[in-house]
Amino acid sequence: MYPNLVKHILKYVSLNEEEIQILLKYIKPLSVRKKVNLLKEGQICKSLYFVEKGCMRLFFVDDKGVEQITQFAIENWWMSDFTSFNTQSPSQFYIQPVENSVLYVVEHHLREQLFQELPQLERYFRLIIEKAYSASQIRFKYLYNFSKVESFHHFSTLFPEFIQRIPQYMLASYLGFTPEYLSEIRKNRL
Amino acid sequence: MYPNLVKHILKYVSLNEEEIQILLKYIKPLSVRKKVNLLKEGQICKSLYFVEKGCMRLFFVDDKGVEQITQFAIENWWMSDFTSFNTQSPSQFYIQPVENSVLYVVEHHLREQLFQELPQLERYFRLIIEKAYSASQIRFKYLYNFSKVESFHHFSTLFPEFIQRIPQYMLASYLGFTPEYLSEIRKNRL
Repeated sequence: MYPNLVKHILKYVSLNEEEIQILLKYIKPLSVRKKVNLLKEGQICKSLYFVEKGCMRLFFVDDKGVEQITQFAIENWWMSDFTSFNTQSPSQFYIQPVENSVLYVVEHHLREQLFQELPQLERYFRLIIEKAYSASQIRFKYLYNFSKVESFHHFSTLFPEFIQRIPQYMLASYLGFTPEYLSEIRKNRL
Repeated sequence: MYPNLVKHILKYVSLNEEEIQILLKYIKPLSVRKKVNLLKEGQICKSLYFVEKGCMRLFFVDDKGVEQITQFAIENWWMSDFTSFNTQSPSQFYIQPVENSVLYVVEHHLREQLFQELPQLERYFRLIIEKAYSASQIRFKYLYNFSKVESFHHFSTLFPEFIQRIPQYMLASYLGFTPEYLSEIRKNRL
C-alpha cells in the first residue's frame, strides 16, 4: 500500500513502478504530536509538509502576543511557509499540528534533485501550487467582501466536517473573531 | 531585441536560440487601452497575461455595485483569474488595464502544448506561481495584523513608485479604504 501522498501525486502525473520507488526515497514519513512546533518565527523553513493524516495550522504571533491563524491543512494538503522555504530566510510564522498527525516531508536540499530524477514532480508541484494560489485569489475576495457572520456561514457550508474537528478558539482565530463572538454566532444569535 | 517576457523567463530557466523561437510562437503581444475589460464576471478566463508595459487590476463588483480591487500587476508580473483559467469555469472577477498597456498573452488551449514542446516552461511557471503564492501567505498576515493606517504606510514603503502611479481611488479600494480616508492619511492627519 502506498501512502496517500503517492496516490495524490498519481492523480496529477504518471509514474511507473520504478519511478514510484525513486519517489519513495525522497519523501520521509514523520509522526508529530499536537502542539509541538515544526517551525517557529525566526527559524528557516526547511521542509514542505504533506498531511497524510491529521491537521496542521500556520500562524503568527502579533504584537500583543496573540496567536493569529492564517491557514489550516488537513489530509491531502501541503503546508509550508513558502517564502522562508524558497529563499531559505527566517520565517515570520509558526507551523504546528492541531492533532497528532502523520506527515510526509520533502526537504529543501533534496527537492531540486527530486525534480532532476523525476521531472513529472515539477509538473505536480506546479499544478498543486496553482490550485493553492487560485484559492488564495478567491479568499482575498471573501476577506474584502464578507461580514464576520457571513464568513462563518460560508466556511461552515464549504467545510462542515472541518468546523466540527478543530477547537473553536482556533476557528475563531482563523475567522478573525473572538471566541465569545463565535460562540454567539453558533447560537444563531448573530 | 526580445520582449521583457523572454528576458524574464531566461532569468528562471535556460533556453537556447531555437527554443526561444519556439517560445515566441506561443506568446502573443496585445496592446490594450485603459479601462477596457479583458475579463468580466461570468466569462471564462482564457488567458494568462504578462505585463510587458503598463499596469493591470483584478477586481470584483460587490452587492452594492462597488468595484473592489484585490490585485494589481505592473511590469514583469503575470495576471489572471487562476480558478477560472484552470477549470475553464465562469469568473467571479474583472481584469482591466489601469493604463494603456502592452501585454503578452498565453492562451489556455496552447499552454499544455507549450509545456510539451518546452518542458522548461513548466518549471518557469512553477517558480513564478510559488513566488506569487508565498506573497499571498504574507499578505494574509498583513490583512489580519495591520490597521488601515499601517497598511497604507507599509504599502507606501514597499512600493513608493506604484503609489504615485495609480489613481488614488484605486489605491483606496485595494487597501479597503474610502478615498476620503486615504486622503486624510496622506495629509498625515491619521
